[in-house]
Amino acid sequence: MKEILVETSARHVHVTQEALEVLFGKGHNLEVKKALSQPGQFASNDKVMVIGYNKKDPNGVRPSAALSILGPVRNHNQVEVSFTDARSLGLVAPVRESGDIAGSGACTLKGPAGEIELSEGVIIAKRHIHMTPTDAAEFGVKNGDIVNVEVDSGKGRKVVFGDTVIRVSEKYALAMHIDTDECNACACSGVVNGKIVK
Amino acid sequence: MKEILVETSARHVHVTQEALEVLFGKGHNLEVKKALSQPGQFASNDKVMVIGYNKKDPNGVRPSAALSILGPVRNHNQVEVSFTDARSLGLVAPVRESGDIAGSGACTLKGPAGEIELSEGVIIAKRHIHMTPTDAAEFGVKNGDIVNVEVDSGKGRKVVFGDTVIRVSEKYALAMHIDTDECNACACSGVVNGKIVK
Repeated sequence: MKEILVETSARHVHVTQEALEVLFGKGHNLEVKKALSQPGQFASNDKVMVIGYNKKDPNGVRPSAALSILGPVRNHNQVEVSFTDARSLGLVAPVRESGDIAGSGACTLKGPAGEIELSEGVIIAKRHIHMTPTDAAEFGVKNGDIVNVEVDSGKGRKVVFGDTVIRVSEKYALAMHIDTDECNACACSGVVNGKIVK
Repeated sequence: MKEILVETSARHVHVTQEALEVLFGKGHNLEVKKALSQPGQFASNDKVMVIGYNKKDPNGVRPSAALSILGPVRNHNQVEVSFTDARSLGLVAPVRESGDIAGSGACTLKGPAGEIELSEGVIIAKRHIHMTPTDAAEFGVKNGDIVNVEVDSGKGRKVVFGDTVIRVSEKYALAMHIDTDECNACACSGVVNGKIVK
């Protein structure tokens, strides 16, 4: 069976054009810093402060970090972090598929021109595989299927990732996306491939 | 088949009595703050600064964090971190079984009375299961065997952890130990059990 490139998504943010302009000013546009594996998707030059919560700090200092904005703009705002990031930033975030943000975590976004309170949009991404319809036919799966993927980086941390969602679109390129915690759990570095297993 | 309690080991340090006295002063002893699942093992009241490396900082500031010392003292010094910790602390650490420290990572330990350069001893713990000979007989495994363990916390991140080492001793209690990255990869929190699978 064909193998699947395993890519690690570090924490990042997606924004709407409207939010982008609140954060960076009227007429601001995302520019391509680096193309990503999924056609048309890119890391932009912009970073936004993601500000979480610290109920224990008597001075009300809130934890924050500068996260890259990925482009192009989307029709919703979404912050993707790992459990590790969520803990360090004081965010409460559920494991969700991209776009499934109803009732997800809250945070504040702050840019040079303004800030936005997000009442929802913070998620820990559910691991998934992007593939084309041709790939799906080859693997015998369909959009929304849940599969198991074995990843063996050869460093003594073989893992079979269950609960991996299949996402099929003509616009996709074949790649599995995991977060930094998942990457560490299988000691992934460099080019590592996974394979769908029973 | 009997299930196995999955416990997450956060970063921590083991020291020799000699190192303890260099760090905290002559005659210092570890005191029990909290008993751990393994009989006789405990979290002590003492924390030691683990100091890593930052070759990029022009001012030579080294990253550091205060890590708990676990007791009782051992016959070697060992620092156990996750890949996440290693990255943030500028440590280079291999995935190893406890005690297998030859050629592992370096760091500096600093306590109120003194400091120690460790040329080796920093590891990322290889996941493992502690069990008694009676447990081993029941599971049909022996010391040093490598097994797969399925962990399903019910939060959409089912994982089968391969490369899990069986460690058998009369002194042990049945428990699987994973690190914080592995915990996050399977969305473990509260009481979660795993089961050995083919």
